[in-house]
Amino acid sequence: MHTVVFLPDEKSVRVEDGKCLLDVAVANDIFIGGSCGGEGLCGKCKIKIEEGSVPARPSPILTEDEIDKGVRLSCQTRVTGNLRVQILTETRLGDQRVLGRKKTRILRGIDFDSVRKDWTLAPLVEKFYLELKPPTSSSNMNDSERVLRHLRLRHGIDATFDFNALKELAKTLRSKDFHVTTSVLMLGPQPRILKVEKGDTTRRHFSIAIDVGTTSVYGYLLDLNTGMVMGEESDYNAQIAYGDDVITRIIFSQKEDGLKKLQGLIVKTINGLCARLMKVGKIKKTEISYIVFSGNTTMIHLLYGIDPKYIRESPYVPTVLSLPPIDAQSLGLDLPESTLVFSIPCVASFMGGDIVAGILFFGLHKKDETILYIDVGTNGEIVLGSEEAVLSASCSAGPAFEGVTIGDGMRATRGAIEEVRLNPKTFEPMLLTIGHTCPKGICGSGLIDLVAELLEVGLLTPNGKFEPRSETKRIKEINGRREFILCAQQDFPGGREIVLTEPDIDDLMRSKAAVYACISVLLRNAGLSLKDIDKVAISGNFGRFLDIERAITIGLLPDIPRDKFIFIGNGSLMGAALASLSIHAFQEAVEISGKVTNIELTDNPMFMDEYIQALFFPHTHCEEFPTITKRLKSVFGRGG
Amino acid sequence: MHTVVFLPDEKSVRVEDGKCLLDVAVANDIFIGGSCGGEGLCGKCKIKIEEGSVPARPSPILTEDEIDKGVRLSCQTRVTGNLRVQILTETRLGDQRVLGRKKTRILRGIDFDSVRKDWTLAPLVEKFYLELKPPTSSSNMNDSERVLRHLRLRHGIDATFDFNALKELAKTLRSKDFHVTTSVLMLGPQPRILKVEKGDTTRRHFSIAIDVGTTSVYGYLLDLNTGMVMGEESDYNAQIAYGDDVITRIIFSQKEDGLKKLQGLIVKTINGLCARLMKVGKIKKTEISYIVFSGNTTMIHLLYGIDPKYIRESPYVPTVLSLPPIDAQSLGLDLPESTLVFSIPCVASFMGGDIVAGILFFGLHKKDETILYIDVGTNGEIVLGSEEAVLSASCSAGPAFEGVTIGDGMRATRGAIEEVRLNPKTFEPMLLTIGHTCPKGICGSGLIDLVAELLEVGLLTPNGKFEPRSETKRIKEINGRREFILCAQQDFPGGREIVLTEPDIDDLMRSKAAVYACISVLLRNAGLSLKDIDKVAISGNFGRFLDIERAITIGLLPDIPRDKFIFIGNGSLMGAALASLSIHAFQEAVEISGKVTNIELTDNPMFMDEYIQALFFPHTHCEEFPTITKRLKSVFGRGG
Repeated sequence: MHTVVFLPDEKSVRVEDGKCLLDVAVANDIFIGGSCGGEGLCGKCKIKIEEGSVPARPSPILTEDEIDKGVRLSCQTRVTGNLRVQILTETRLGDQRVLGRKKTRILRGIDFDSVRKDWTLAPLVEKFYLELKPPTSSSNMNDSERVLRHLRLRHGIDATFDFNALKELAKTLRSKDFHVTTSVLMLGPQPRILKVEKGDTTRRHFSIAIDVGTTSVYGYLLDLNTGMVMGEESDYNAQIAYGDDVITRIIFSQKEDGLKKLQGLIVKTINGLCARLMKVGKIKKTEISYIVFSGNTTMIHLLYGIDPKYIRESPYVPTVLSLPPIDAQSLGLDLPESTLVFSIPCVASFMGGDIVAGILFFGLHKKDETILYIDVGTNGEIVLGSEEAVLSASCSAGPAFEGVTIGDGMRATRGAIEEVRLNPKTFEPMLLTIGHTCPKGICGSGLIDLVAELLEVGLLTPNGKFEPRSETKRIKEINGRREFILCAQQDFPGGREIVLTEPDIDDLMRSKAAVYACISVLLRNAGLSLKDIDKVAISGNFGRFLDIERAITIGLLPDIPRDKFIFIGNGSLMGAALASLSIHAFQEAVEISGKVTNIELTDNPMFMDEYIQALFFPHTHCEEFPTITKRLKSVFGRGG
Repeated sequence: MHTVVFLPDEKSVRVEDGKCLLDVAVANDIFIGGSCGGEGLCGKCKIKIEEGSVPARPSPILTEDEIDKGVRLSCQTRVTGNLRVQILTETRLGDQRVLGRKKTRILRGIDFDSVRKDWTLAPLVEKFYLELKPPTSSSNMNDSERVLRHLRLRHGIDATFDFNALKELAKTLRSKDFHVTTSVLMLGPQPRILKVEKGDTTRRHFSIAIDVGTTSVYGYLLDLNTGMVMGEESDYNAQIAYGDDVITRIIFSQKEDGLKKLQGLIVKTINGLCARLMKVGKIKKTEISYIVFSGNTTMIHLLYGIDPKYIRESPYVPTVLSLPPIDAQSLGLDLPESTLVFSIPCVASFMGGDIVAGILFFGLHKKDETILYIDVGTNGEIVLGSEEAVLSASCSAGPAFEGVTIGDGMRATRGAIEEVRLNPKTFEPMLLTIGHTCPKGICGSGLIDLVAELLEVGLLTPNGKFEPRSETKRIKEINGRREFILCAQQDFPGGREIVLTEPDIDDLMRSKAAVYACISVLLRNAGLSLKDIDKVAISGNFGRFLDIERAITIGLLPDIPRDKFIFIGNGSLMGAALASLSIHAFQEAVEISGKVTNIELTDNPMFMDEYIQALFFPHTHCEEFPTITKRLKSVFGRGG
């Protein structure tokens, strides 16, 4: 660790070796300009090294003279020792107020291992090693009965044989002196023998848990003997070629062979994911006993090849919420026929097994506190509850948070602007992109950052329009449409213009209003108010990069004490993993799916009412956002 | 009906219109010669019409003079009015003793319909017509739950959905206003919905019962609404190309792709059978809810593609006796994937579901009498029991009864000699073939007839050798091997020689000895004797053509009162049909399979002992065959 002191404010921070100086500044709310996302092209993030040594990297931006004087590009500078750094006048922000809007990245409040340890390891399929006695003329019962009898007498398990496990049974029993390992499905009205292998294979026993998301698919490889996660992989859902959200996928599924195509694509994605997990874990296909899927209702329908048509037509009825275990091959998965697939049951058309899994993982349904559980992606799913009752509601948040619909939006991949700071005086931006490369567009978290910054610096009014009185060349008007130039073409060589338009802001406002209205409806239905919420659990990938303070600033999340927020990671994946390790957890997921009361918001007057009130930054009822109202007041000089 | 009086004995018989005169004579034990099987070629069956009119058919055998005098070939003569018929000296048998060995064809003692009526009609898969209410926003449970709930509330059935029934559910429900028919598997720990069809299809609900025999396959098409048999078809098992009995099939199954080939062949046979049944019944594939198979243990293994290797290796262990219901397509059957297949559970490697089905059909396990149940084909399966206990044993009867192994043997098809009478003085034969065509060979029942006749006329000694003192050109000796010429080449134009050799007789003796020894072992194990047997039930195709008196004469069946014998037809098929119509019957079959105690006869000293004692016609212990011993005594002039 090194100490870096930023001048002129003498702000001293501790920094890990090798960190990028621009990142250090951003993390500590010190404003340094920057338009190229950290690529070293715009030259706006110049600083001067007053003490300490920083090797100069050749750059067309810096003159030899500058280099001699210790001037560097902060985005190109790694901290390798103690430093004193002068922020140059042209980049420095004279106003300390920026430090008041400190970034609040939520802490991860819960990890998989700690939750897993609360559950007895009890896989859905168990392996039993049997040392049978070979048949003799005085004990010549048939092979299958010999196995069943041993299971009954030695292990207390009254099982039946699956047909496929019978075919090669005679040969298998005789290939290692009647010493075999049986794989037995423990879930259901009667245990079922799925497979018989020669010898003792009990030490090689794995499962895969997969979160089947609309955009991304995440998988864990789990060792069923230890409960440990052996590998983790993710990929885009290959279906995204046919639409960004569940609605467009459902529409596509109604075309000729559409359903078959979509199923084929997700199966292809999952096959790839499994192959990588097996490679990472050095596992053979035959060692995977089963997969537990968790996904929203539409994704599960598409994965199983079940027509999702009526999910999107009022009154929004899915074909099925809870699927029986079936063999992996019948979905087209590249796994042995004895490998089963399970899925976490869903609650309703727009309240899927991914949320049930999250509730299971977080234990919401067993808490004596009131929990608000939020999973925002293209859909926003909100759950409010405790051990007493669980309510849920979902809203189409629209793909704004995924960065998809807005003009210069993009997914959170390399080149996406994910953090934005604006100089409150000059309105010049400091941009950080994923991968520190030239900005290509703006992703969901960057969009929230930017809109919050625009509000903070007074460029944007609470109704989502650019302040007409502001005078800055960053705002231009084309055909009556105003837009903020986040990145001008001339900011660096090869730069492209990236703008945020008022329609883009409307889009975000509608999305955040839908989520917030959804929270409000749940609270009203439960007879609770904001102050009754003991914890807010944020789940999903979106939460990973979410600045909680910014999300409250725009009115996406409620203005309650920040320490009530916790980020639980991918609740869907981890719930599926739990259900994969413990039959009790799986059964609890089934119970949760039956216990959750889902409130349909479409054509719901209360929701429409709440939604309209939320179409404002942060909200038309400023008393619901006291800390934000107070802060913005100093900008706009008014009370709400 | 007409009256025919045979002269010179004035024997008067009542005859149906159109009957063949030779058949009438045979049925009434009146001897008329005949070598060509009824084809009209040998001219040995000439008779003279004394009164009444019989149109003459042109024949190269009869002269015009003969025709004018009323001479006719009895095999070519149909009875169309009252007749007085003179049996000509050259064909007439002067000895009345022949009437003493009256043919005893067993009467069918039991028919399917009468047994069926004792069972409540309760198919393994039931159809329920549901008039569901379409979903509304206040009742928007998912489609599958809507179906399950209705079944639960209206029909008291707590079912689960099979995955395949879910795929098209949404569309099916909506194609006829949520009026659907569900097919529900009622067998097992929890009812399972297999299929959902639009509208009311309950009136079209069928199953097929199939007896999968080593040689032949028989099927019934059953209406599950009425319990009626709608059609009946049979075919050879196409596997016979690869061996006549189960042992040769098992050996073939061990060759490369052997099992796959054999499975393919029986599936092909069954597909053909089902297609014909559906055509006859005017039924669509989708209207067949399931098939119930009944077969010996090897046939069931081969049909399901399960390696039967260890069935024939000591200690004779099959892979499985009781198979779970699976979908027809997984066996390769040309039926919808929702059509299930069941099979009647087996007892042991050589005591199959065919016998369990027969026990079920006859109700042996519920009788307060002691029943001997006999099913003889290439294998002989014998069951002895009552409501108290059921013992079984099987022996390899060898294919002699199927007419296969002996030199001039053949299956019971067109041209097979099925009935034989010998003139006790001249030893000239009267032959009747299946289809009244020229004899091609001798089938199982013909063989038993012939050997019994040879014993009766004194040409064969009880140890199975031709009487050395007899002088007839019908017996010739070639290289020390003696044989009986049943049909000489010159007997009719284009005739072929058909002979019975001493090795052929040895073959038959071994077969009958095995069956009889099997009966003896069962009796000894049960602590019973012959007089304790209240009824003998003969099952199977072999029994259909069996002359009970002749079978006792050679010592195949025990010498007990003839009225104790009853023929029950194809017990395997009818048991399968019962189990198909009633879940209670199916469950009873499962119970029977567990209740039967099978005695393994291989390397069984008691069996070897009994077998050796039975290697004699009828038996070395002549007191076991009192009526036969008494009758044959007059031939051989000795007491046993």
